[in-house]
Amino acid sequence: MALSFVTTNRHKFIEVSRIAREYGLEIVQVNMSYREVQSDSVEEVARVGAVEACKALGAPCFVEDSGLFIEALRGFPGPYSSFVFRTIGNRGILRLMSGEGNRRAKFMSAVGYCEPGKDPVVFIGEVEGRIAEDVRGSQGFGYDPVFIPDEGDGRTFGEMETGEKNMLSHRGRAIKRFLSWLADEKRTG
Amino acid sequence: MALSFVTTNRHKFIEVSRIAREYGLEIVQVNMSYREVQSDSVEEVARVGAVEACKALGAPCFVEDSGLFIEALRGFPGPYSSFVFRTIGNRGILRLMSGEGNRRAKFMSAVGYCEPGKDPVVFIGEVEGRIAEDVRGSQGFGYDPVFIPDEGDGRTFGEMETGEKNMLSHRGRAIKRFLSWLADEKRTG
Repeated sequence: MALSFVTTNRHKFIEVSRIAREYGLEIVQVNMSYREVQSDSVEEVARVGAVEACKALGAPCFVEDSGLFIEALRGFPGPYSSFVFRTIGNRGILRLMSGEGNRRAKFMSAVGYCEPGKDPVVFIGEVEGRIAEDVRGSQGFGYDPVFIPDEGDGRTFGEMETGEKNMLSHRGRAIKRFLSWLADEKRTG
Repeated sequence: MALSFVTTNRHKFIEVSRIAREYGLEIVQVNMSYREVQSDSVEEVARVGAVEACKALGAPCFVEDSGLFIEALRGFPGPYSSFVFRTIGNRGILRLMSGEGNRRAKFMSAVGYCEPGKDPVVFIGEVEGRIAEDVRGSQGFGYDPVFIPDEGDGRTFGEMETGEKNMLSHRGRAIKRFLSWLADEKRTG
């Protein structure tokens, strides 16, 4: 049976469905908004979101919330990354970072999964890196063109093809943790 | 009987209690967090917040949510004004606005009121103005020192005493609408 990924973000769905295929799983995009809480933690946003989405859908499903946390900006834009991207965008981020020596940043992803009548479970993924001096690359979405992962070769996520990004990315890591757990559950459950 | 204002922000409480006194009402601060939704609308944040706060408190209460919406930044920081203030602050706002010709902005406030078992009601207040070129004044809180209301004399909210700010401010307007409605309700109800 296909697994429902509740998201309005097509980019996320494409990234995640590619990983799911490696696990022999089929996922479907449920293009539906669910209630998101204001919180400084993507983990809480995903946990509450999974419950809300599952309630609205009436079926098992997962959601994913992620954020870019910039050290010199005290964690901005954090869990509000999507709104900040729609308003000030990468240009605004680079402007805020202009002349800033400390360019450390991390991406965090939280995957929340819920089945009707059960407690939600949450899986976290992180990737450390730094903010580029300018926008580079046109792949991925959001802040990908200004984020350089430490474990890469100096390219931004925006300069990487999906499979390559999935190997290093916060979202790839959180999703793999979730899918490994799910495979175990189905085997033993 | 005193009316409960659910907020963790002491500055807001002081502003609002001053207005309440003009209406012959006493309000008490219930220093409690309630669940806030992620939404581009302060109205929705206040509506859902009033329901959540009332549920948690088990008594009639009101909440207030406000945001600064900067035209050139497509409504940033909007309903996430509090988080943005804690992270990039007024310095970040001025940086994003540096060299920007269009400095139009507005403050919006939404007051949500709820009684157990009833639907919430919401009252809106707005004030139009512009973003200052630098931080001016130390009164008020948040973005007050960078916001110049159109109806004033060129001073920022940060350069105004509470009573003066309340005459012009988004929050003052929303609260007065709420308290007028409440007085009518109590008379006719």
